[in-house]
Amino acid sequence: VAALVTLTTDFGARDPYVAAMKGVILSIAPEAAIVDLSHEIAPGDIAEAALFLAATLPYFPHGAIHVAVIDPGVGTARRAVAARIGDGYFVGPDNGLLTLVAKRLDLAAMRVIDNPTVMRPAISPTFHGRDIFAPAAAHLARGFAFDQLGGGVEAPVELAWPEPVPIAHEAYQGRIVHIDRFGNAVTNVPADWIAAPARAWLSFGDHRLDGIRTTYADVPAGQPLALAGSTGYLEISINGDHAANRLGLQRGDAITVGGAGLIDAGHAALDPSAAKR
Amino acid sequence: VAALVTLTTDFGARDPYVAAMKGVILSIAPEAAIVDLSHEIAPGDIAEAALFLAATLPYFPHGAIHVAVIDPGVGTARRAVAARIGDGYFVGPDNGLLTLVAKRLDLAAMRVIDNPTVMRPAISPTFHGRDIFAPAAAHLARGFAFDQLGGGVEAPVELAWPEPVPIAHEAYQGRIVHIDRFGNAVTNVPADWIAAPARAWLSFGDHRLDGIRTTYADVPAGQPLALAGSTGYLEISINGDHAANRLGLQRGDAITVGGAGLIDAGHAALDPSAAKR
Amino acid sequence: VAALVTLTTDFGARDPYVAAMKGVILSIAPEAAIVDLSHEIAPGDIAEAALFLAATLPYFPHGAIHVAVIDPGVGTARRAVAARIGDGYFVGPDNGLLTLVAKRLDLAAMRVIDNPTVMRPAISPTFHGRDIFAPAAAHLARGFAFDQLGGGVEAPVELAWPEPVPIAHEAYQGRIVHIDRFGNAVTNVPADWIAAPARAWLSFGDHRLDGIRTTYADVPAGQPLALAGSTGYLEISINGDHAANRLGLQRGDAITVGGAGLIDAGHAALDPSAAKR
Repeated sequence: VAALVTLTTDFGARDPYVAAMKGVILSIAPEAAIVDLSHEIAPGDIAEAALFLAATLPYFPHGAIHVAVIDPGVGTARRAVAARIGDGYFVGPDNGLLTLVAKRLDLAAMRVIDNPTVMRPAISPTFHGRDIFAPAAAHLARGFAFDQLGGGVEAPVELAWPEPVPIAHEAYQGRIVHIDRFGNAVTNVPADWIAAPARAWLSFGDHRLDGIRTTYADVPAGQPLALAGSTGYLEISINGDHAANRLGLQRGDAITVGGAGLIDAGHAALDPSAAKR
Repeated sequence: VAALVTLTTDFGARDPYVAAMKGVILSIAPEAAIVDLSHEIAPGDIAEAALFLAATLPYFPHGAIHVAVIDPGVGTARRAVAARIGDGYFVGPDNGLLTLVAKRLDLAAMRVIDNPTVMRPAISPTFHGRDIFAPAAAHLARGFAFDQLGGGVEAPVELAWPEPVPIAHEAYQGRIVHIDRFGNAVTNVPADWIAAPARAWLSFGDHRLDGIRTTYADVPAGQPLALAGSTGYLEISINGDHAANRLGLQRGDAITVGGAGLIDAGHAALDPSAAKR
Repeated sequence: VAALVTLTTDFGARDPYVAAMKGVILSIAPEAAIVDLSHEIAPGDIAEAALFLAATLPYFPHGAIHVAVIDPGVGTARRAVAARIGDGYFVGPDNGLLTLVAKRLDLAAMRVIDNPTVMRPAISPTFHGRDIFAPAAAHLARGFAFDQLGGGVEAPVELAWPEPVPIAHEAYQGRIVHIDRFGNAVTNVPADWIAAPARAWLSFGDHRLDGIRTTYADVPAGQPLALAGSTGYLEISINGDHAANRLGLQRGDAITVGGAGLIDAGHAALDPSAAKR
């Protein structure tokens, strides 16, 4: 089996940046299988990318090498790093991209990439994706030793991520963290905080949705619902319609989740490790 | 040769859904070659997807496994199915996605997917793409027997597709079924209904285009034309311009095709098998 | 190592055209590894595609086969060609797509594609991508001899590309040739015309940027700068913002570069070969 290299960027499909990275990887590791995850992350949006990676990397096989280049700090002092994450590898900037993945997969080790052997000879100060991250990933794909990439990193940069906060007895304030293509509003409230779905509720603005549902068709067409989404967080949806447009929901909006059906979410909120799966 | 798994979805490139499916497939069938067909089908648009699949699947080699997830009914009673189509396989929801493909390739057998062996252990009620269709396709790619997926399906769901209807002697009313990126308006009138292109015409609104042309340059730049499009249907185009924008054409619009140059289209319209190729 | 076939088109991701090409390639050359470079080139925009190819093809390994279908002249007398470019191959229309690549890689030979052996039996007059270019590339991938594709081409069509022109002592007028997803305005002035970055300047409209920088963080956040971009041309950027939107820059706009820091750019401008790398 050839080594698997996945790519996640904010480069879009129209500029030559992704293609240049692919050429660099295949020039070093011709047998690598390159898999596009997304190149449509919003430009410079580390939080969106972190959520994307947390929803995708756990599904990939042993040994996969995940390159993620959402890198607004390119050319500054931010570090270029590689990490062992779960049973695969991450290669990219040290800017918080792994913060949410690390709740689901073990972040076992991180190295700065400073060994010139795994870089292109000339390094553009504005495109480390092509000149550092792509070649480093390709060298890993060929069997280059992770420990030889560079010195160890003790404390990766952490993303400032909004965890739900307790605001009352059996009530937490969360946030909408993503609107997907279908108009589903994904919140930051882990779905496994809900022990008794029928006895929980989710509210926002003037709306209160009683009960956490399992699928869109649990309510009549055109009706809103709260449900446990496929990425592991509570979502606000409308059966057969675009919830965000219809309900005026935006990323960053506050929501409240509450009721007797919550597990000891207070404990979970205070101890993030309780939310791991 | 590694097994080929193609993906067609309405998930877009920004959300994590396609990437999760790729991870699931490669975890089960690491040697599979995944080929993206499109992830930009309009959300929930089964007719657009059916037309897309009919224009692409016939070109793929023996044994290819085509996963299509345009699945507005996920979480309802709609069946998850696999089918032998031509000399390859289809995996996806039973909601009419194969109706147009089946006019071009033999739909030899269909099975419901209900064997837990080919599914992920926990199934999200809103994301069968990741938890049922991707793993089922990957198991087929590894050689899992089609007949063991589940029970046979006698009558697949049929798409309500607008066939051209006779409206006068040597005249049929058709519909625009797709506008492509270049502004070409694709109709539902099979190009092989035209036996004598010079003696046929196509009309819409106040326009009448005499003769069915073969390429854009058959008329001066900026002029509209009707031609036999590359997907096998008549199209309305403008040489060097965006026909739909210039002529105000939209999907669903009625058009008329007529003239002595038509073959016995009445027969073809009554007997859809006559339009097979 | 399986043969590598890259695809660059203006077909977008929603229409069935790219997928049909992939099917044709894999039907002929099942072991080929298909790599998407871009399908989002602006429709019919040969100059954008030529710039894209020049920024990507040099990174690909020996033997790669690059199919590029930006083909507004399909169905006219324009030639279908293949070329040896660097140590790989190009397959596409002869309409100037290679003009900028040929400044970076040797264009060693060009052949018209007229051998029916490498085409599909029926050729759509509007989709040579599927019926000529894809199969020809696939046959090359299987080892078909380049020289057997068809007769030699002496003079490929050249793109009318705006080279910078001298307008005063130590001053050249250039053009903005591309706006990227981040808002960087890429000019047609090769970055290697700058020998002493501190003693060069770039101006447009009422703005004059003194000094050519190396990365965005060389100026405070929100400030504009001129820098040597990663594709080898001077760019206008804003640290942390979208320069084109903020400064009102558009493709085609004139800019001026000057100062004592320029190398003998006059010589380079008169002798394009001096700009090769």
